[in-house]
Amino acid sequence: MDLLKQRILDEGRTVGEEIIKVDSFLNHQIDAELFREIGKEFHRLFDSKKITKLLTIEASGIAIATVAALEFGVPVVFAKKTQSRNLDKDIYTSQVFSFTKQITYDVMVSKRYLTKDDHVVILDDFLANGKAALGLIDIVRQAGATIEGVGIVIEKGFQPGGKLLRDQGIRVESLAIVDRIKDGKINFMN
Amino acid sequence: MDLLKQRILDEGRTVGEEIIKVDSFLNHQIDAELFREIGKEFHRLFDSKKITKLLTIEASGIAIATVAALEFGVPVVFAKKTQSRNLDKDIYTSQVFSFTKQITYDVMVSKRYLTKDDHVVILDDFLANGKAALGLIDIVRQAGATIEGVGIVIEKGFQPGGKLLRDQGIRVESLAIVDRIKDGKINFMN
Repeated sequence: MDLLKQRILDEGRTVGEEIIKVDSFLNHQIDAELFREIGKEFHRLFDSKKITKLLTIEASGIAIATVAALEFGVPVVFAKKTQSRNLDKDIYTSQVFSFTKQITYDVMVSKRYLTKDDHVVILDDFLANGKAALGLIDIVRQAGATIEGVGIVIEKGFQPGGKLLRDQGIRVESLAIVDRIKDGKINFMN
Repeated sequence: MDLLKQRILDEGRTVGEEIIKVDSFLNHQIDAELFREIGKEFHRLFDSKKITKLLTIEASGIAIATVAALEFGVPVVFAKKTQSRNLDKDIYTSQVFSFTKQITYDVMVSKRYLTKDDHVVILDDFLANGKAALGLIDIVRQAGATIEGVGIVIEKGFQPGGKLLRDQGIRVESLAIVDRIKDGKINFMN
């Protein structure tokens, strides 16, 4: 997606050879118009009458999935990371290790909002080690629902998440795949 | 906003006299089309050429603010609740106590994305004790920016947050104000 890649080149700030900060438009400040284009692109890629639900995880994924849902015309469910007094007790849960935050946390989805009849597209902002996506896939499988694919805004192609998912036969569509970060320069694979 | 109030009556589940669970459409599963209408209503209420930014807090507020931003045509900034390796060191920070989760946490906004020239509308899903809103207001004031108002989807009129903000002279627009929960019945004030 050229519009996105240009934006990453224009505004992305690199730290070392592994981190790209895109918090000016993606995950701290949000450019809603760009998100609209991202949503349209996901809808184009996963155009299927079968899809019944978009699944994501708090926090940044929520904005992506909700704007995409305006295109898909289906509900979003976002997995929660912390136990809230207001969350149902009857939940699917999976454990996820965050490399960014260096903690393991539970992701939770109420059984009310994911059933065996659902056809699910998982959306998220980043795919790096794949831990969050694997946690969501685990939850979809616990529900007996069908995974139609995983849509990612920025995949770090030099980290193992993408391969891990694709090796399981899961369709992964990444709008920008970063191949390499070297001397502050970002190279794309796609 | 009648569409919203009807939805609360149809799908809201009450627990005791203080909790309304609206996770079927607002803060776990999300009805994006309803969010579009909510966004239009906030834009109608805060229609001003002066507004430059929508500010919210992760997690549920992100979806509301991002869809509203499609109407406002301005960026969203969402305050973060946990320190991330990828967050700038140069941040505004304020402490917030969550009654729902019974913890105190820091809310953080990078100084890059909020400046003294900004005219800010704060958006969130719930207003109860007002702690989250006060944390965001504190951050806007630290930035020297102007608070144009606070937009809330569901205000619990029987809790002190709304009065607390209005007593400070802050314009608060709540799309539904719940007056009372009694024997599982929800009464609205507006």
